[in-house]
Amino acid sequence: MTLITTDPHTGAETDTGIAPTTDAEVAEITERADAAFRTARRETRAWRSGLLRALADGIEADRAELVAAALAETGLAEARLDGELSRSAFQLRLFADAVDEGGYLEATIDHSGQTPLGAAPDVRRMLVPIGTVAVFGASNFPFAFSVLGGDTASALAAGNAVVIKAHSSHPVTSQGSFAALARAAEAYGAPTGLIGVVYGQAAGAALVADPRIAAVGFTGSVSTGRILLDIIDRRETPIPFYGELSSVNPLIITPGAAWVRTDEIADGLFASFTGSAGQLCTKPGIAFVPADADPLVERLVSRAGAAGPQTLLNVRIHEAFGEIRARLVDEGRARTLVAPSAGGEGYSTTPALLEIDAADMTPAVTEEAFGPLLVVARYRSLDDVAAALDTIPDSLTATIHSDPSEADDVAELTELVQDAVGRVVYDGYPTGVRVSWAMHHGGPWPATNTQHTSVGVSAIRRFLRPLAWQDAPQHVLPDELRDGVAVVPRRVDGVLRLAED
Amino acid sequence: MTLITTDPHTGAETDTGIAPTTDAEVAEITERADAAFRTARRETRAWRSGLLRALADGIEADRAELVAAALAETGLAEARLDGELSRSAFQLRLFADAVDEGGYLEATIDHSGQTPLGAAPDVRRMLVPIGTVAVFGASNFPFAFSVLGGDTASALAAGNAVVIKAHSSHPVTSQGSFAALARAAEAYGAPTGLIGVVYGQAAGAALVADPRIAAVGFTGSVSTGRILLDIIDRRETPIPFYGELSSVNPLIITPGAAWVRTDEIADGLFASFTGSAGQLCTKPGIAFVPADADPLVERLVSRAGAAGPQTLLNVRIHEAFGEIRARLVDEGRARTLVAPSAGGEGYSTTPALLEIDAADMTPAVTEEAFGPLLVVARYRSLDDVAAALDTIPDSLTATIHSDPSEADDVAELTELVQDAVGRVVYDGYPTGVRVSWAMHHGGPWPATNTQHTSVGVSAIRRFLRPLAWQDAPQHVLPDELRDGVAVVPRRVDGVLRLAED
Repeated sequence: MTLITTDPHTGAETDTGIAPTTDAEVAEITERADAAFRTARRETRAWRSGLLRALADGIEADRAELVAAALAETGLAEARLDGELSRSAFQLRLFADAVDEGGYLEATIDHSGQTPLGAAPDVRRMLVPIGTVAVFGASNFPFAFSVLGGDTASALAAGNAVVIKAHSSHPVTSQGSFAALARAAEAYGAPTGLIGVVYGQAAGAALVADPRIAAVGFTGSVSTGRILLDIIDRRETPIPFYGELSSVNPLIITPGAAWVRTDEIADGLFASFTGSAGQLCTKPGIAFVPADADPLVERLVSRAGAAGPQTLLNVRIHEAFGEIRARLVDEGRARTLVAPSAGGEGYSTTPALLEIDAADMTPAVTEEAFGPLLVVARYRSLDDVAAALDTIPDSLTATIHSDPSEADDVAELTELVQDAVGRVVYDGYPTGVRVSWAMHHGGPWPATNTQHTSVGVSAIRRFLRPLAWQDAPQHVLPDELRDGVAVVPRRVDGVLRLAED
Repeated sequence: MTLITTDPHTGAETDTGIAPTTDAEVAEITERADAAFRTARRETRAWRSGLLRALADGIEADRAELVAAALAETGLAEARLDGELSRSAFQLRLFADAVDEGGYLEATIDHSGQTPLGAAPDVRRMLVPIGTVAVFGASNFPFAFSVLGGDTASALAAGNAVVIKAHSSHPVTSQGSFAALARAAEAYGAPTGLIGVVYGQAAGAALVADPRIAAVGFTGSVSTGRILLDIIDRRETPIPFYGELSSVNPLIITPGAAWVRTDEIADGLFASFTGSAGQLCTKPGIAFVPADADPLVERLVSRAGAAGPQTLLNVRIHEAFGEIRARLVDEGRARTLVAPSAGGEGYSTTPALLEIDAADMTPAVTEEAFGPLLVVARYRSLDDVAAALDTIPDSLTATIHSDPSEADDVAELTELVQDAVGRVVYDGYPTGVRVSWAMHHGGPWPATNTQHTSVGVSAIRRFLRPLAWQDAPQHVLPDELRDGVAVVPRRVDGVLRLAED
């Protein structure tokens, strides 16, 4: 039995010729990864940043083939896929910069000496890689959260080996992505097996159970996340699971914003909830609109009603989209503003727009609907919004649109949302997550199960652990902790110091 | 039913008059803590560091009473308890310095602008407190890992509220410690309930299950840790559990060290495994000694044989000490070099010294024996050591004693142990953990279940989470992220910058 790939534009199935990875093969791959990790960890940071840049070049060299493969497997638009591949390459290069800079190591030196508690030894601390990381690709980002995505980049940047579970929704894209990475790594001289890939659900389970795996990076549903967590619970040695899981991303439009920037916000919101067919983890799923701000809602209705069909990623998402929308209307007391049309062949749909009174918000309405669906929650006062927000599960983001005259309300709304999210967006949209040093893509459960980010430079921290050396001879210390010129930023006897040239 | 306290010197029980906290009281305490957290989080870092210093002063003001209470409940020596109270105060002041400095916030600013991926928004990131933290005191550190210990200090430094589960082994010390903290906090003007305490096993379980609890800090056994993890698994919202659990702390003595520093090492090792009656999580439990280095072992035997009785903390530890020692001899193929004498009243014992051939190392020998017990593992070659190390569970520390002429062996031994521990000690002893910026007190499972430390400044990181603000107006940003003078170290557009005066 080999894996099937499906063209979501038509539903047509093709045999990929890719065999699911057997348990024995998974064990071989992790063993090779572990051996490669032990070789590669001896290399310098300059070597590692060079590897990341070589991988970036490698995937860009295969851009045309990779985008074509993803086009046939995901239903996403070509411009989006092209941009996503650029994003993946950019991400690898940004992490290479971070590796060169070295601040992520948190190098810290406390010299020996007298303290109020008596004589104290020399203690030096740095973050070190953890081993081999299992990465689970997501269906909705065939590049940036898949084989050559952020988890792979951050785990490699940290100095680890990586074994990727290819997503069943885009096996051919995964195979091509892995080939590009493997070719570039080999040409660079990386040890064989530093990056591996496995195919099939059983292989994914075997991977998480494998004793050589030191951590799991996952982007996907809460239900699949729970299954993987159960496997971890049965391991002899527990390991960290970094899951980016589910998010409804409330967006609040104040009266000032709704009346002053009516069309601009309606258009921006429409673009944000329908972009990539609404299949982004930061898609705003609920928008709070003043009860009397009909013009904004009318504009949203007109945009959604006029929109053409979009193709969803796979049959499961297509079916769930219909089911969740039905549930919102049947059980969630939501009214239909724009009903989606079933579309033609394959997994296509037009956008859906629902409406509810914020005071009637129910748990059913707060369910994440993957796809181009927005619930407009009409509110009479900020108290309505506060009460409704309490029913919404914690999310990756919250967004506040306001008028400059409403500073006090913005402060109050910020207070309301900040404990429930990982990022607060002002007068913009949560989609289009910037890959940068300051980005945080995370949030309280069920948005994630971790206090770390999965996008941006600090994502590296997930795949590192501290190690301390006490009264160590210079020769066993990493370069970054040795006496003399500081090649990275260091905290010395409590004082932060920049790297010296 | 009120709680009983036991004098381990005699086994005599006294009614403390302290009632176990009821479930309703636990809920009240966490509710008050949550409200206090919401008030206190608005305060400045200067306010918070002032609070930590006021707490340090408060516990030092009650030094005599606190040490007397611990003396009666723990069986630990007065000098040790006095030093431990100083350590707790030092810890609070060190965390106050860290709060003033602000580097722990990881303040990061990416300005808006053009990037290779197009126009990007302004993104600012900082670590923020998580809410109310449950802290479980440990039996073996009535001050430094208990009510006024490191978990309390780091959770408060991060800006959280704390509710402490008092350890059943020292309820009166816990009550006095809490009174000192509460009095100092009130005098300082902290909101009531910012620090809380609960008594009794059922209250501890209710605390971990309470929806207002945002994280758990725990120092104790793997079995109790598992029970608390099971409670967390049944919560609607999972929370991080930071457990410092179990450790055998192997110590390796090379031939050069064994023959050149024979007496010095025997004496140091004796002091390290018997200090605080061997009830330290970093106690070296297994020492690798060359097969032919009899003089070192003879000196150890003579020191252990001549040692007087020491009092163990409680009846459970006293019983387990006897059982584990019997198991090592019966099932572990270990030979008795020095048998402990049962001692007189109460929970006293003299040290135990066992011996085994490193080549015969069995899992039974690698069990942590809390108390003054050391297994000497005699080895013929470093290969023996490597093979034996493989059978030892991962630990908080490993220690290498060597001669300067053995640099290559030290490098090889460092490689052998570094993946299995959180700290490598050279020519010293793992006990006496320095409280400092660079310290790492952690390690792979079963030493801990986390990639963070529970001692030293970076312990604060456990009780913080990242929050990002995108295109935020200045007035909603924390001071540390506003434009203008940088009051803390910040990374701006990827470049680390020191704080400005």
